[in-house]
Amino acid sequence: MATMKRTSFEDMDCTIARTLEVVGEWWSLLIVKLALFGITRFGEFQSELGIARNVLAQRLQHLVETGILVRKPDSQGTKYLEYRLTEKGRELVVPLIALMQWGDKWETPRGGPPIEVTSKKGTAIGPLEIRDYRGKKLDPADLAFRRLREPRSR
Amino acid sequence: MATMKRTSFEDMDCTIARTLEVVGEWWSLLIVKLALFGITRFGEFQSELGIARNVLAQRLQHLVETGILVRKPDSQGTKYLEYRLTEKGRELVVPLIALMQWGDKWETPRGGPPIEVTSKKGTAIGPLEIRDYRGKKLDPADLAFRRLREPRSR
Repeated sequence: MATMKRTSFEDMDCTIARTLEVVGEWWSLLIVKLALFGITRFGEFQSELGIARNVLAQRLQHLVETGILVRKPDSQGTKYLEYRLTEKGRELVVPLIALMQWGDKWETPRGGPPIEVTSKKGTAIGPLEIRDYRGKKLDPADLAFRRLREPRSR
Repeated sequence: MATMKRTSFEDMDCTIARTLEVVGEWWSLLIVKLALFGITRFGEFQSELGIARNVLAQRLQHLVETGILVRKPDSQGTKYLEYRLTEKGRELVVPLIALMQWGDKWETPRGGPPIEVTSKKGTAIGPLEIRDYRGKKLDPADLAFRRLREPRSR
């Protein structure tokens, strides 16, 4: 096979590949991050991301179609539409924090981490930890990955 | 600004954007996932991913340059090279499991999750949870995101 289009991820029997199909496009996770910050309007997303209007419109549309954002009339009664995270979208906070914590440790931006995530009361959050179902912390080296079925042939 | 190249992420003052700069390319996280499964050789990565040799070679090179994989002579003394995760690379298991758990819940593949992650003893792992530094579990809705500095102008 000489070339492989991005859309081929859809056919892969791999949850991570399927997740990337929905949110893996470069801008999507950054849009979700801004939505977690409370940004709701097209113009705000655009000025934060410095992204072309047509690209932003496509990405927002994709996030609406995949059920991560909902688009509705502005809650303050203006003529603007607003984009709000669904429950499915809000739960992306876990992979986002995981990526942020990894990046803050291994690819620290000049000047240190630019964003702080705390509880609403201001309590610092701890690093995400892998635990077994009883709550015992597991080291990444203690994990076993097992296929539950053979990969689909390609 | 009419167009925005992907490389512009490098200039963004955002840890997530910087992380995507390193691992956001579509294949990179899937390569890391296979490395966590114990795959080490070029040919194995290629047959698992169904990816063109030149694309795979580029991605592996990028992962070596960014310190996620190391390339060395095969530990069994054959003529092959092997690719092994560094500590930096192994720690990507946390965002990977976060993406996998989100995808298993919200984008479940036909036939259910294809992969099971357990402890080496076979104990099931629990969902990743956001906790404060004292270990108290936090709901995503209880989180506050605060900028520690103004975004750099673009």
